[in-house]
Amino acid sequence: MASDNSVLIALGGNALILPGEKGYIEEQFAHTDACTWPIAELIGRGLRPVITHGNGPIVGNILLQNECAKAYIPPMPLYICVADSQGGIGAMVAESLGNGLGRLGVRRSISTVITHVVVHADDPAFGEFTKPVGPYYSDDAAQRYMEGGWKMRKVAERGWRRLVPSPRPQRIVEIETVATLFRSGIIPIASGGGGIPVIEEGGLLKGIDAVIDKDLSAGLLAHELGIERSVVLTDVDGVYLGWGTKDRERLASLTVEQAKRYLFEGQFPVGSMGPKIDAAVRFLESGGKEVLIAGPQNLIEAWEGRGGTRIVC
Amino acid sequence: MASDNSVLIALGGNALILPGEKGYIEEQFAHTDACTWPIAELIGRGLRPVITHGNGPIVGNILLQNECAKAYIPPMPLYICVADSQGGIGAMVAESLGNGLGRLGVRRSISTVITHVVVHADDPAFGEFTKPVGPYYSDDAAQRYMEGGWKMRKVAERGWRRLVPSPRPQRIVEIETVATLFRSGIIPIASGGGGIPVIEEGGLLKGIDAVIDKDLSAGLLAHELGIERSVVLTDVDGVYLGWGTKDRERLASLTVEQAKRYLFEGQFPVGSMGPKIDAAVRFLESGGKEVLIAGPQNLIEAWEGRGGTRIVC
Repeated sequence: MASDNSVLIALGGNALILPGEKGYIEEQFAHTDACTWPIAELIGRGLRPVITHGNGPIVGNILLQNECAKAYIPPMPLYICVADSQGGIGAMVAESLGNGLGRLGVRRSISTVITHVVVHADDPAFGEFTKPVGPYYSDDAAQRYMEGGWKMRKVAERGWRRLVPSPRPQRIVEIETVATLFRSGIIPIASGGGGIPVIEEGGLLKGIDAVIDKDLSAGLLAHELGIERSVVLTDVDGVYLGWGTKDRERLASLTVEQAKRYLFEGQFPVGSMGPKIDAAVRFLESGGKEVLIAGPQNLIEAWEGRGGTRIVC
Repeated sequence: MASDNSVLIALGGNALILPGEKGYIEEQFAHTDACTWPIAELIGRGLRPVITHGNGPIVGNILLQNECAKAYIPPMPLYICVADSQGGIGAMVAESLGNGLGRLGVRRSISTVITHVVVHADDPAFGEFTKPVGPYYSDDAAQRYMEGGWKMRKVAERGWRRLVPSPRPQRIVEIETVATLFRSGIIPIASGGGGIPVIEEGGLLKGIDAVIDKDLSAGLLAHELGIERSVVLTDVDGVYLGWGTKDRERLASLTVEQAKRYLFEGQFPVGSMGPKIDAAVRFLESGGKEVLIAGPQNLIEAWEGRGGTRIVC
């Protein structure tokens, strides 16, 4: 089904609200325009993308809004907040990308597909609460929530934060839709935030509070669509050795084996580039051929082989 | 494209959170199950639906959550809140309907499509602020918002409420997606809450704070898909004359002309059945053949001709 021009493009959640920003809608649209207009340029040259995105800062805001209004409205479960975030972010990305195409006179339909992802109820991750979500809470508030069943962890000087499991994605419920649209030349935006986590009980689906690693879901999506190339659009222009030092050096390309060695040596920052390289390795080890890591500012050059970092088998 | 089994099914926003309920997620799922399981039954017998839904109570909750958290997070514009509500409600409806089909052993894909709807920037509605949205505000808060540009109206004993325009839907941006899915036998959930309103400026789309009448958008959607029948699923089992009296009488069927005469005579409550009949009349006058009004509890019988109210040309 996939052609040489097929690619999965992953936008980081931090590409929408930058650290330190409040998240005004004008800021968010400026960032989505910056991310999607170079993609539009490449679509004009024949690229056939499926787009996915993170939702970290946005779903964090939605959870805080739920918390602030809880005297009036029952807070929604995390998985519904994820669904909300897929709607809002997907609408923004579709609008920005559509306008980017419109400026170039390229006609192409784009559609956000609300995406559920099945996880196994007996995934060992459900015994390990590893993924922090939502706002920070005071000692008192945290106490009440923990009595209600939440797992939480205290972060020095910030407060308590809820932890949820991060089970592995097993199946993308809306895969037939995404495949149908992709085959028809429509650009799908799918699996936002790693997908809405659901478990299967006797053939029925049931939402569950967890966060699925968005890069793993993206890898599964690409695999199901037969897409062998992936672009990770992030806030730096490539992968560096010696990041944060004056001798830093961008890697034009590296093999899976090199990537794994550097990861093992701790060459990449744990909270930022590390997980992306890790996800790239898994993408390549499960059938992918190439991962390109670049920023919006150099995506076009990087796609043409003049910048960014290529990770290959 | 449409066959005899094609139908547009509209779920009222009040079908998700009933008047007086707080809106706990369990309540919402109980209602979506109640609405969608009879639909699943009919799909099992060959029905090919496109589903749309209101979002009134849900988007009201999202707006209140935005208001309550505004000291921390910039409130999102109404059109983003509509997008969020399409995501959350669509996810719920897809899950409920999917489980309804699963119980019957019927395999069919269902997908929520985030839907933008173009309105004309010069629609006279933009000079008339008619549609109340979101929470009630105190005199002081309302004063500040009105200085910031909002139009508001005071409701006795409740407080001030924001008013937004209600322009006519002109074009469904994601129509190619909905049509492609429908043709492929996938059940689309689309145009939730009347759609995310956008205006076109120099070929580019821009979100705008307004509420598009969901029945008008649904009519446009059906028309574009060549669907001639519509089901309006509401909280009563049909259309009554003398509603609220002991002599009330359900109308098994009525013609467009009869419906218009009853509307003119004020036979239907303004806030509830009136707008549905009005929308049914417009649906039929713009190419539709039949509108069935029924409740979840009698949908199957009504579909078979034993209940509900049929409005025909």
